[in-house]
Amino acid sequence: MTRTAFFISDGTGITAESLGRSLLAQFENVEIRKLTKPYIDTIEKAHSLVGIIEATAVRDGVQPIIIDTIVDQKIREVIRAAPGFKVDIFSTFLEPLERELETHSSYSVGRTHAIASDAAYMDRIHSVHFALDNDDGARTHQYDQADVILVGVSRCGKTPTSLYLALQFGIRAANYPLTEDDQDEDGTLKLPPVLAKHRHKLFGLTIDPRRLAAIRHERRPNSRYSSMDQCMQEVSQAEALYRQLHIPFIDTTRFSVEEISTRMIAETGINRRVSPR
Amino acid sequence: MTRTAFFISDGTGITAESLGRSLLAQFENVEIRKLTKPYIDTIEKAHSLVGIIEATAVRDGVQPIIIDTIVDQKIREVIRAAPGFKVDIFSTFLEPLERELETHSSYSVGRTHAIASDAAYMDRIHSVHFALDNDDGARTHQYDQADVILVGVSRCGKTPTSLYLALQFGIRAANYPLTEDDQDEDGTLKLPPVLAKHRHKLFGLTIDPRRLAAIRHERRPNSRYSSMDQCMQEVSQAEALYRQLHIPFIDTTRFSVEEISTRMIAETGINRRVSPR
Repeated sequence: MTRTAFFISDGTGITAESLGRSLLAQFENVEIRKLTKPYIDTIEKAHSLVGIIEATAVRDGVQPIIIDTIVDQKIREVIRAAPGFKVDIFSTFLEPLERELETHSSYSVGRTHAIASDAAYMDRIHSVHFALDNDDGARTHQYDQADVILVGVSRCGKTPTSLYLALQFGIRAANYPLTEDDQDEDGTLKLPPVLAKHRHKLFGLTIDPRRLAAIRHERRPNSRYSSMDQCMQEVSQAEALYRQLHIPFIDTTRFSVEEISTRMIAETGINRRVSPR
Repeated sequence: MTRTAFFISDGTGITAESLGRSLLAQFENVEIRKLTKPYIDTIEKAHSLVGIIEATAVRDGVQPIIIDTIVDQKIREVIRAAPGFKVDIFSTFLEPLERELETHSSYSVGRTHAIASDAAYMDRIHSVHFALDNDDGARTHQYDQADVILVGVSRCGKTPTSLYLALQFGIRAANYPLTEDDQDEDGTLKLPPVLAKHRHKLFGLTIDPRRLAAIRHERRPNSRYSSMDQCMQEVSQAEALYRQLHIPFIDTTRFSVEEISTRMIAETGINRRVSPR
């Protein structure tokens, strides 16, 4: 039996979905179809969604799970009439919080997200362009403005991590690829001179060579670049360099971009410039 | 009186922080310092955090607010002993959900995030590189592989939106700038031929000219590019083009990258390739 869960919001739906997925992830044995319904911000949209929920209940033969972060009372009431098992985040927690904070809440979740401060917006956009300009060692003269410089072999996750750090936290992340160009005459990887004076900003990424080979194979099948020998050699040299110079690093093999980013922040204590939304 | 809120997790902290910020945003009049504490995944880290919470309670003269998504029972117990007003998401909702789903939950939030499927990871990474390769009209021959092509004037938010769509949803978003190069002889903006055959994939962004001028001014102060006249003219031509060709579009002026992206998805019905995490 497949059940359906609806994550409903009058805003982006990010909070409802993130909480809903975390809760339902606890039930590995239950097959749950997950539908996010953002921007349910009018009575009409709410009624139309109730129709969808009713049809889903009939089709599934069991009531859907409804997880919502709708603030508007009139819209809530419409959704409340839908058949479903309701996880009502706001009404559950807002009242106790009102007592604790000894004040009334303002019911403005949607708006809060919309009125982003100009400064925070500019910071995030600036950081995204910083990450783009300083991607893959393309430019190295702005490293004094970087909050962090990610280093690692090609395709270990540097670019997506830099961009996530910029978009989510406004962190200015450059990244620099460790390649054979930076080996000395006996084939040992050396810290490129351009990085030497920013050693305190370096953060290393590493990866299981088998995973690396698979990722590179997608890009250039059956090449030297994607061969196991090459991947093993590059990864072991990069890790040796991190250890020798005490560059903090993490293994990205089993981590999502979110995890790589948040772990890096937790380990280095780098300040976020803006709060995630 | 400033109060402190702790968002605590044994994983990335994204769920705890997202929910916590949404809840606390309802209390606009209360000044709340917000601290995210991710990866509290050992008893030792939990004890050390309890020490920080205790010190905070003394300094603030009032108990902190504690919002957590810790799953491990032993770690929970340590945190539970800290002084604070606790918003306990999992224990509040998991038990009722267990009854509704008639099964036990598996207490594995952290792990669930870690065991990302390889396919989803590849999809997101591929989409990030697609967005980079197809940024700002740099390349146009891959538009048949695009899920969406964002169009708009320079600095209206195309690049951050493309990257967010890729990172968060695995959507392949190209973007193309509308510039004077695409005006005809009477100075009217025309749809560039390279976009004509992909009209069904186009999505327009627009922006308040004053906001655009401010953003451009950061980049090139006191230039024609950042002048109000220029910004007004470009924006009005872009909007005229959208209307004439029935290209759906949204005004990004007061929206965050998250909102632009999720609204675009809601309006176009584009399929996400992966779920956000």
